[in-house]
Amino acid sequence: MPFFNLNDLNSKNLADGVTIKAVSGEKMTMTVFYLTEGSAVPEHSHPHEQIGTVLKGTLELIIGNETRLVSEGDGWVIPSDVVHKGHCVEGPAEVMEVFAPVREDYA
Amino acid sequence: MPFFNLNDLNSKNLADGVTIKAVSGEKMTMTVFYLTEGSAVPEHSHPHEQIGTVLKGTLELIIGNETRLVSEGDGWVIPSDVVHKGHCVEGPAEVMEVFAPVREDYA
Repeated sequence: MPFFNLNDLNSKNLADGVTIKAVSGEKMTMTVFYLTEGSAVPEHSHPHEQIGTVLKGTLELIIGNETRLVSEGDGWVIPSDVVHKGHCVEGPAEVMEVFAPVREDYA
Repeated sequence: MPFFNLNDLNSKNLADGVTIKAVSGEKMTMTVFYLTEGSAVPEHSHPHEQIGTVLKGTLELIIGNETRLVSEGDGWVIPSDVVHKGHCVEGPAEVMEVFAPVREDYA
């Protein structure tokens, strides 16, 4: 059954005001992050490569030593193990983030 | 430089009325497909796993032997080498598609 709908996926709480929905194949995980205004994803890193883009709202992202305000149409590529964090400055925000390999912790 | 904006990416024409913008890391490629109403992506397959979701518009997708009308919030996971095709029934449509490994032909 290759099809899904985001409404049918369980939400997972990542931090105060930050929930995600995730779907995985064998090689990668696609997620949508939902962030309330003022919520934050604390500094972290992971071996998974991460590519993201903003669907709605505005966030401040810090990737490595670069800081940027990002909104619809902005995106980023985070190489393996590069430290990053972000917070939502105008919400609610929705962000598409994909990871390779699969994020087993989001399953 | 981890950041990009979709407006700054070159468009690539895939078929009549179908253009894409793509950005790649080392393990995957994120793309946005832009489709005019009535345009189509002909049947094809590739070794890359593909996960997609509709941002705007409505498409009919056929993945393997399953046919589905998809619109905002709908998504799909296409395993390696599974034949698929689609056309835009209500446009313009925008579809986020990610591929692992990297789609060298979209670079």
